[in-house]
Parts: sequence; C-alpha cells; structure tokens
Amino acid sequence: MKYKILLIFCLYFTLNSISSADWRKPFFRRISTTEGLSQSHVSAILKDSKGFMWFGTDEGLNKFDGYRFSFFKHYPDNPSSIDDNIVFDILEDYDKNLWVGTNNGLNKFDRKKNAFSHFFKEDMHLNVRDIFQDSKHRMWLGTSSGLFLLDLKKGSYTQFRHEQNNRNSLSNDFIFKIIEDKSGDLWIATKNGLDRFNPEKKTFLKYFHDAKKVNSLETNWIKVVYRDHSDNIWIGMLGGGIAKYNPVNNTFKSFKHNPQKANSLAHNDILSILEDRNGRLWVGTENGGISIYNEKEDRFTTVAYDPNDNNSLSNNSIYSLYEDNIGNMWVGTWSGGVNFLPKFGNKFTLYKSILNQNGLNNNIVLSVAGDSDGNIWIGTDGGGLNFFNRKDHSFSAIRNQSGNKNSPNTDYIISVLEVEKDLLALGFHRGGFDLYNRKTGVFVHHLPILNNSNSLSAPSVNTIIKDKDLNLWIGTWAGGLNFYDRKADKFTQYLHDPNNSNSLCDNFINILWEDSDGTVWIGTDNGLDAFNRTSGKFTHFKHNPKDPTSIRNNNILTIMGADKGKIWIGTGGGLCLLDKKTKSFKVVTEKDGLPNNVINGILKDSKGCLWISTNKGVAKYDPQTNIFRNYTIADGLQGNEFKAKSAFQAKDGQMFFGGPNGLNSFYPDSIRDNDFIPPVYITDFQIFNKSVFVGDKDSPLNNEISETTEIRLDHKQSVFHLSSLR
Amino acid sequence: MKYKILLIFCLYFTLNSISSADWRKPFFRRISTTEGLSQSHVSAILKDSKGFMWFGTDEGLNKFDGYRFSFFKHYPDNPSSIDDNIVFDILEDYDKNLWVGTNNGLNKFDRKKNAFSHFFKEDMHLNVRDIFQDSKHRMWLGTSSGLFLLDLKKGSYTQFRHEQNNRNSLSNDFIFKIIEDKSGDLWIATKNGLDRFNPEKKTFLKYFHDAKKVNSLETNWIKVVYRDHSDNIWIGMLGGGIAKYNPVNNTFKSFKHNPQKANSLAHNDILSILEDRNGRLWVGTENGGISIYNEKEDRFTTVAYDPNDNNSLSNNSIYSLYEDNIGNMWVGTWSGGVNFLPKFGNKFTLYKSILNQNGLNNNIVLSVAGDSDGNIWIGTDGGGLNFFNRKDHSFSAIRNQSGNKNSPNTDYIISVLEVEKDLLALGFHRGGFDLYNRKTGVFVHHLPILNNSNSLSAPSVNTIIKDKDLNLWIGTWAGGLNFYDRKADKFTQYLHDPNNSNSLCDNFINILWEDSDGTVWIGTDNGLDAFNRTSGKFTHFKHNPKDPTSIRNNNILTIMGADKGKIWIGTGGGLCLLDKKTKSFKVVTEKDGLPNNVINGILKDSKGCLWISTNKGVAKYDPQTNIFRNYTIADGLQGNEFKAKSAFQAKDGQMFFGGPNGLNSFYPDSIRDNDFIPPVYITDFQIFNKSVFVGDKDSPLNNEISETTEIRLDHKQSVFHLSSLR
Repeated sequence: MKYKILLIFCLYFTLNSISSADWRKPFFRRISTTEGLSQSHVSAILKDSKGFMWFGTDEGLNKFDGYRFSFFKHYPDNPSSIDDNIVFDILEDYDKNLWVGTNNGLNKFDRKKNAFSHFFKEDMHLNVRDIFQDSKHRMWLGTSSGLFLLDLKKGSYTQFRHEQNNRNSLSNDFIFKIIEDKSGDLWIATKNGLDRFNPEKKTFLKYFHDAKKVNSLETNWIKVVYRDHSDNIWIGMLGGGIAKYNPVNNTFKSFKHNPQKANSLAHNDILSILEDRNGRLWVGTENGGISIYNEKEDRFTTVAYDPNDNNSLSNNSIYSLYEDNIGNMWVGTWSGGVNFLPKFGNKFTLYKSILNQNGLNNNIVLSVAGDSDGNIWIGTDGGGLNFFNRKDHSFSAIRNQSGNKNSPNTDYIISVLEVEKDLLALGFHRGGFDLYNRKTGVFVHHLPILNNSNSLSAPSVNTIIKDKDLNLWIGTWAGGLNFYDRKADKFTQYLHDPNNSNSLCDNFINILWEDSDGTVWIGTDNGLDAFNRTSGKFTHFKHNPKDPTSIRNNNILTIMGADKGKIWIGTGGGLCLLDKKTKSFKVVTEKDGLPNNVINGILKDSKGCLWISTNKGVAKYDPQTNIFRNYTIADGLQGNEFKAKSAFQAKDGQMFFGGPNGLNSFYPDSIRDNDFIPPVYITDFQIFNKSVFVGDKDSPLNNEISETTEIRLDHKQSVFHLSSLR
Repeated sequence: MKYKILLIFCLYFTLNSISSADWRKPFFRRISTTEGLSQSHVSAILKDSKGFMWFGTDEGLNKFDGYRFSFFKHYPDNPSSIDDNIVFDILEDYDKNLWVGTNNGLNKFDRKKNAFSHFFKEDMHLNVRDIFQDSKHRMWLGTSSGLFLLDLKKGSYTQFRHEQNNRNSLSNDFIFKIIEDKSGDLWIATKNGLDRFNPEKKTFLKYFHDAKKVNSLETNWIKVVYRDHSDNIWIGMLGGGIAKYNPVNNTFKSFKHNPQKANSLAHNDILSILEDRNGRLWVGTENGGISIYNEKEDRFTTVAYDPNDNNSLSNNSIYSLYEDNIGNMWVGTWSGGVNFLPKFGNKFTLYKSILNQNGLNNNIVLSVAGDSDGNIWIGTDGGGLNFFNRKDHSFSAIRNQSGNKNSPNTDYIISVLEVEKDLLALGFHRGGFDLYNRKTGVFVHHLPILNNSNSLSAPSVNTIIKDKDLNLWIGTWAGGLNFYDRKADKFTQYLHDPNNSNSLCDNFINILWEDSDGTVWIGTDNGLDAFNRTSGKFTHFKHNPKDPTSIRNNNILTIMGADKGKIWIGTGGGLCLLDKKTKSFKVVTEKDGLPNNVINGILKDSKGCLWISTNKGVAKYDPQTNIFRNYTIADGLQGNEFKAKSAFQAKDGQMFFGGPNGLNSFYPDSIRDNDFIPPVYITDFQIFNKSVFVGDKDSPLNNEISETTEIRLDHKQSVFHLSSLR
C-alpha cells in the first residue's frame, strides 16, 4: 500500500519587533557546546534557502533548525562523509547547492541523500579557506595552495599560484578571502599582499605595505576583504587594523587601534568584517571583540566578553559574522561557540544584577510597584529597595544600614506600594512595615508590639493596599489582616477565629485587593475571602470538590478586577474567574493551554488580553478567543518561575514581571511573533519505533526525510511515526 | 501469550573517593528548575529504600532518579492525586510506606498504583508540617492544628491541642517539628514554646524563653528540634539561633549570631539542623546560608550564596537538609532548588577564575606545565601566565605590562615549558616566545626578524620541547619547525618545501615530542612527521584511505610515548597507536567506546590506564581490557571540551586537564566509582511506540512498571519497548 505524506509542519524563529533606534548594549543568546554545538570554534555560518542554519567548526559541520543539531563529521570508512572535520567556509550557490570548504578539500552536499561528494581527488589535501561565486556564477576557491577557478560541469579546475619570477601572479599562495567589486574584479586577501585580479584578462594588480607611502596598507597579511552595501572595499589585516579603499586616488584609509583614543578600533588583528542592514560596519577582531564602526560619527563602539554577564559576547576572537535574511546577527567565535542577536533585540528587556553594570543590586525580585512620577520601585530579597528611573533607565538602591533608623528596616522587602506622592509603604520579611517619605528621607517603622492588639499583628508583611482614604490594609504571614488608620496611627487586627465562621478564613495572607464598592478581597493560603467593612464579616470562597463552580484551588496568589462584576483570581491550581453575582467560578488551566497552573501575576493589555506569569513562563491569554501564546526563558525571560507580587503595569502600558533571576519589562503591543515562517519539515521517520534513514539497508526512503514527498511502505510496515521539531 | 520481563537494568549515582580531611569550600551541584525540578522552594528531601530521591516543593512532589524527574501534583478531578501542591514533609516509615504531608493533609503513596490515598477526610484541610514515626512505630503528625497520633490500622486519630486553661496541654497548635529523645519523650517545636511530651503518660513538660533565667531558650518560636548521633537535643529558633539542651541541669546552651565574631552562627533565624556522619552540625538558616558547627573548635564556618560562583549554595534560606545513606548531602532552599554535595566531593577538583576568590585570573587554559619544585605553570588566553603553588593551593599571575620589557610579551600564552630549574619558555599567540628567568625576573623575547632565516620563523609558537642538551625545538603556526641553539642564540628553520618530499609535511605544527633515540616527532595539521636529526630528513605518516594500517586522521594533536617501541598519537579522528617497527597504526575511536574522536591530551596513570581529554569529556581507557570509563561536565569537569596542550602529569601522579572554562586536577588512583549500586528499574513500557501506564483503559499493567514483575500481552500487542534510564 502506498502512503502519501504531506509536509505540513512548522519550523520558525520567533522575533521581537521592538525597534532599537538608540544603541543599547547587545544582549546575545549563546549557542555553545552546552546547547548542542559540536565544538566551540565556529569559522563559518550560513542560513540556507530552506531556513536551516549551518555552522562550521573544528569538529564537523553542524546543522541547526533552531531547536536541535545534527552533525556531519568525517568518517574514513564512509566515502560519502564530509572530507574533514575542520570546516572553514560554507556557501550556498546560485543554484542552491551547498558547498563546504574544509582543511582537506571542497565538499558538495546532496540534500536528498544527506551525503557529500568531493570535488577533488583524495590526495589533493587542499586547505579550502574560502568559496566564492562571482556575479557571472563562476566558482572560485581561496586555498593555502593558491586560487582555483572551478569548472563545475567538467569537474576540473584552473589553479593560480604564486610564481617567484612572475609579477603577474598571485602574491602568495595562502588565500583567506575572495570578493568581487562593482567592476567585476576579484579582491583576494593573501598572507602576503592584497591582490586585485581581473578574471577575464587574468591580470593581477597588487597592493602591499609601503612604509614610504602614507596611504598604503598597514601590513601585508590580509585576512579579510569585504564589499559593503555602497560597494566600498574594506580590508582587514593581521596587525594592521582595517582599511577602506579609495578608488579615486587608489589609496587606503587606515583605521587602527589607538590606546589613547576611547572610540578607536579595539585591536589590530582582524578576522571578519560585515556591514549590517543599518549601515553599521561590524569588525571582528582577534582577542578584542567586535568593534562596530559608525561612519557618520567616525567612531567605533566595541562589544566584548564580560565574565560577569552571561549575555555578553562569549569570546573575544570573532571568526565569523553573519546577518541572515531576517536581519538577525550570528557571531562565531574561537572558543565560545555562536552568539545570536535577534534583529529587534529580545522580546523582553531583562534587568539583572551584573557586576560593574548599572542595574539591580540583587536578582531576587519580590515586589514591584510604580509611583506618581512613572518610576518603578522594586523590593528584593536581600538587596533592599531598588529604584528604577524609567526615563534614563538607571537603577539605584536604598538598603538597610544598621544603626541608621532612617533606612529600610531590613533588606528583605516583600511588598511595596506608593501610598501617595513621595510616600512609600514597604512590607518586610520579619521586619514589619515602613512608611518612607522620599522628600524628608524619614522612615517610620511599624513592628508588632507584644500583647498589644492595636499594633501590627505579625512581622512579615506580604501585601499592602490603600483604600480611598489612603489608609492601609495589610496582609501578613501568620498574623491575618490589619487595618492601619494613618491619622490615628492605630491598627485593627483581624485574625482567624476557629469559633467564628465569619472571621478571616486563614492567617496566612498572600494578596489583598480592594473592589470599587469598598469590599476588601483577601487571598490566603487556604481560601479567598471578601471582607465587608460595614458588616465586619468575611465571606468565604473555598474549593468544594462536590461543586464544580467553586473556586478551583485554595492557594490564592493574585487578584485582578475584570469588567461586568467579575474578578480574576490567580491560584496555585489555575486561573479562576469569579462572577460576583452568582458567586460561581470558571477556571482556565493547563488543559486549556496555560503553560502552568500556578498563577503568580495577572496584567491586562489595551486589547483586553491577559498577561499571566506562571511557574513556567509568561502566557498571553485572550479570553475572547481562548487562545494562548506562551513565552519562556528562551524568549528572554529572567527564568520560568515568577514571584507573585512582582507583576506591575505602568500607566503607559509597559508591563513588568519579576522573579528569582531579575526583572523583565516589555510593551505588550510590541510583542509580535515573527512574520517570516520558513517552510516546514519532517525531521524524523520511524517504523516500529526505529528511526529510518536514507541509505539504510532496505530503507523505504530514497531521500532524506525532509526532502521526501512520497514514501511507499508494505503491509508489514504497519506502524510508523513522523515527527517534526517544535 | 505470556511474556516475562526480567528487571536487570542499572541505576546508580557515581561517586568519588577522595577523602576530604581538610576543610574545603564545598562545591555544590545545583538541581534547579533548569534541571527539571518543578519549583524552587524545596521544603522536604528524602531518599527512599529503593534509591529514588523525593523532593517536596510548592508545586508538587518530585521524584528524581538521578537523571530525570517525574511529578506528582494535585488535580481536583483526580481523587488519587496528591491532595495539595505545597509539600512540607516526606517520610518513609518502618514498613517502607511513603507518606507525604502537605498544606492540605496527609497522603500515603501506593507505589504499585502510582497513586495517593488520603488519611483524612477532604474537609479536614490539615496543614501537615511534620510526619514522625517513633521507636515504637507510632505515627505522629505536627500540624498547624496541633499534634496528631494516628491509628493507621483503624484510620483514626487522636488530636492534642493547646487548651487555654490546661497547663498540661500543647503550648501552641502550630507545630513545626517532632523528634524523639533517648528516653522516648517527644520533643515538639511549636510557634510558642518547646514541649516535651511523654507519649505513655500523655504529659507535657514545657520550655519557654525566660528573660530572668540565663540558660533558658532565647525565643519561643521553635522551628526545629533535632537529635544528634550522641543523642543530644538541639533546638533551632526563629530569632534565637540554636540551643543545645543539657539534661544534667535542664538548661540550654545558646549559640547566636555575633556580628563582632567572625566564626559565630550566620543568622538567628533557624530553619533546619542536621549532623553529618563526620560529626559536623549543619545549621540551615533563613537568609544566612548554612553555618557548620565544629564542636571541638567551638566555631561555625558559614557556607553561603556567591553570585559569582555557580557552584556555591544557590540560595541562603535553607529549608531542608538531608544526608542520604551513602553520605551525600542534599540541601533544599527557598528559591534556589536543591544543592547536591557528593560525599567525597567531586571526582575532579576544579580551578576557575571567580571574583574575589584566589584562583586563575582567566578561565581559558591553553597550556599547562610543571616545574622542578613541583608547582604548576599555566598559560591562559588573555590572563597571561598563571602560577599554581601546589603546597598551599594558591594562585598568582604574571601579565604583560606595556612598557615593561621584563614581563611576558603578550597575555596569550599557548605553550609553556620549564627548560631548567627557574627558567621557563613561554610560547605566545602572535608574540614569539620568551625565556623567563624566575630568579632574576628577566624576560628575553624572541620574535621573527624579517628576512632573517636565523630568527624565529613565525610569531605564533604552539609548542616547545627541549632536547637532552636543553636546546629547544619550537613548533609554530604557519612557520614550521625551529631549532633554537641557546648558547649560540641561533635559530634553524625547517619549513615545508613543496619541491622537497623529505621536508616538513606542513607548516602548521600542533605538537612536538622527542623520542628516546633523539627523533623529533612533529604533529601537524596535515600529518605526522618524524625528524631524524642526523639525516635531516622528515619521514611522513599520513592517512591513506587504501591502507587501513595508516594513521587514521591527519590532524595531529598530541603525542605520548608508550612501551615496546610504540607511540600513542592523538588525532582529530581517534586515538592511534604507532608501532615504530612496522610503521603501522592501530586506532581506537568512538565505536570502541571513546566518548569523542578528538584526542586533545593523553596521560598515563601508574596502573597503565590512559586518561584522555576529548571534546566530550575525559575518558579513562585500559588498553589491556579495552574498557572505557568516561567522565563529563556532570562529574565536575570544567566543560566537555579541552585544550590540547593543557594535559599535564605531575611527578606524584596528579593529573591536570585544562579547557575553556578552567583547570581540573585529580589523582587517578582516587577516582573510584560508587560501590553502592542500587536496584535497577524499568521506567518506561511502550506498546507500539506509546507509553503505557497502570490505570490506562485496558492497560496490561496492573502496577507501576518499576514495580512490575510480570506482564501479559496478547498477540496484537506484538511490538513493545522497555526502557530504563541511563
């Protein structure tokens, strides 16, 4: 029987569309051997026409689909394997063939057979550094044994070598790079001289370092030649920095490292050059990182490895630079694998505590609140109170100072609230709460007083809210609810009384929320309560296993009002929607698409979608359509786990979510998924639970599975399994 | 048809047997949500009698087999699921039943059904903090509603609560912990007082803080009670530090945090206490890390979170401490998951560059060599020359100082060698080589001189060896071989000459090795050469695809002499053994058990085993038996990838392997595998590629697969698949 297989699966890279007009320190995502790369030295990077990434390392060719790697290594017993593990260059030609240059020769990849053919005979042992196809589709090779022009149809070649007594020959056999200029000349980077070759006339024009000429090349060891989008020719040298060729007067303008000048090129040993689509020239150096040249301002900004920052460049020796069709940047290094920089930056901006960088002073973000100036206050677990100025993106911190009363009572701030302009309330772990006056700098501390029921009932203040009179409702851990009358400086305690069913349901309060009618909603570890101030009674909402309309879970973590008399309740067992009239709950859980049932924080965007922080990332939920779009640490989140009171939305719509590894911020309207969806591929085919490959004995596959349109199986092969990666 | 399944797979934890007599900073391995833990707050840890680890978090119960996690969470629709996601305690009783205490009740786990039964009725909502079985096998519960004595047979219980007017009642309903002392009394930690309960007489003796009594408890909020191996009772308090009970005079000796005293308890809020098998008392605090008490010296050593060290404690709030039957320590924290400390430390000591710690100043270790004093010199990629004093384990560094000739020529040192006592040779990346006299501090630099063939041939010196006259053979990158006559201060260059087949095969030299007969073996990027000094000729060894006895791969990375006229050659495509007589090679590759074919370094231990650093870890290879034992980053290696010249063996047998993330050292004789091999389990059973579980509709399994001894299948279920984890 025949089975036709349809290829309909999806592979895509997700992107952000936040524009980055101003220069921000790039936030790289590292793709190293830890993520599956075969080896750390990445000399070549390419994205092919099918959307797969290819990385050439010292241990084979890597194919990467955004999730998983597959490897192509040299096996002496397999003549169809790549001819060597040290890969220098990868090219997809005009006919979409994939070519790979290695330490041993030139390989052509047959996608259907998942195999390689070798252009040269085995004993050639050609060190192929660069593969270049010119505008006339001629194929050239830069090798350590000279320049090659290939005749692909015949499988033959013409070799151009350095000839000692022939000036019209290659300057040096060792070629690193070849490009073509506007006029059709080839510029060839050799170990001893820069050559300009006319392919029709077969003539060489040569450029060398000339100590007597001011505008000559700085050194003769040419590592890179590059043609930018304006057709300028750039040259990168070993020990000579970079140079821009001036065709008018046939000279070179030099750019070198200047230790006296802050914005000069970082290092004079150049390995790679690339102009991005924004016109910035990226110069990859050896041991100096990347110096990005802004021609208008005539300055270099250097991006380098920072041992304290896992999102900095992974290594300072930049062997390959690649910008793909979407505009993402890929950087291959000497011993740090690949660095990936999405076109528009990450979806979510991440603020962390990083040595020598202005940022948080502690990564564990417990609470976030905004003030009237539009700035952000952050309570941390051990770093005290952090302040984020949203205009200039700067951070500062106010910490407990023993001996100084006018400092936060402790550094462990689990709740923050602006009571009124310039007055903050800070709730501490085992430290009561403070009222902090920003103008005067005065901190007034409030702690429980033993045997005084008019004082704070317990020392750990989980949540603080204000009512319309700007008095405070305070939820504590183990001490129930407190009402604080600020004028009278008096507390009224509300504790759970086992003998009074109208009392607070539980003394462990996680969250408080005031309804528009003055009802105080209280989320505890053991149920949800609604407190009626007039009657002084607590109405309880607990899970009732016999009643499917009861609240789903008693661990109440967060509360947010919704329209039409409804309230969203985030619990440890799903997102619940309470209808105040009917007192019934609907619930949304993992079964419906939530990434995780623990609802730490809920925010709503201008389009009515909810943004929910869980223990497995942040979910965007549209209650109208019931569609989820879930984001994880791979999208740039501080982690997958979040802290319940660290969800905050500023007036302009910007959202903040914090957790144990820092604070994220984003504009929900700016988070779009990639509008480029590459074709999709099946990547694995199994019969009876065993993967089947083209080339296997009796394989039903004639081609690589991702290149297959039809498979014939017999009746015995009755159990098969197709997969595509997600 | 019946199929009987044998259970014969292996699950084990691997250990090291290096003794740790002296105190070293613990090197924790973190098991966090990144590794698969469901949530970061770990309140309970247990290893059951079958060898599985259990972790109780705020989001369910985790079962961990050393490799993978499985989860038990609360699902309201499933009455056999655990009753709540917030787990406080886990106990395996004398009958090997597993009990789990949660925020909602007490659960008993049925291993065969992979399901839970609940001891209490649904509406009890009991907050079960501690489950304790005394020496008479009575089962007690410490809850927030008092003390429970369970009658497991009847399923009933007796509840002891605080009674206002009854002195002979529990001090407070909120219980954190219960233990039993030598005499059979139960010590109960409550929120307001320490109670000593006689289970037979049902009497309570109570201890409180008494400001008037010097040796009373510091506070009343008792969080922990613990009985050590000498039957002492220890008490941990919130705000009161710890206390040791003195039964002779019925008093308490207090230990509190003293900011003036360096070796005092780190913090006064205590969460956990445990005595390890070495007699050290581990005190887990809130926000202070772990203070380990040495009673003999009467001092605490504190272990805390270090943001710059990924192997430090992950978080400073220590909710659970557990020592398993092997002696490994497991630490559960508030927001950092679990920290694992193997009994004897890691197999491999790891030296890294960590802020504020004495260590390397750069993590990329390119070369390692020893000197006559037995100390170690390390060339790094950007940190200059590092020196490791093996006696006191201290590091220091000598870096390039611009303007100071008597400093290393650059900070990028790719080869190091002791020429003679106090004289080192340093080979640089693009910096020639230096001879460094330690006594005088003088550096003599050697660089290529243009057009002078009596100078060094190229600026990058990959490898340096000395001959019996202490002259130097130098292998360069792109410049071939040099012989340096030190007396004459003269270089003789040997380059590849394409017109002379007896010349050096390739100018890119990775490694040199001198044979006992004076032959210089040269490992290049393109073949192995043997240089005969007398004849001046180079004999070549290259891969010949037609000759299976030829060398396997031309990328020669390392060379080590073996007995009986043989030489080990490490290549990019396997480990080769050359027989000098027959000039034939045998090869060992991944197919034979090597973790990876790239052979970076080879060392030999006293038993004749080879230790091989590859790009996927370090392999121990016994050439006699052909058995491999492979180690990876999970065993404590700096990474899986290593640098070729960073393999070094000291005279006393200690081995060093370096790579991009630091330097490892170990004594090969001390690396033993765990002698405890727990029983093995099948963990997955699939029919037609779909996992089958007990409880599924028409499931052939009556019990959990790991508890199953026999499965019956019918003829239709003809394709099945068993797996066990590795």
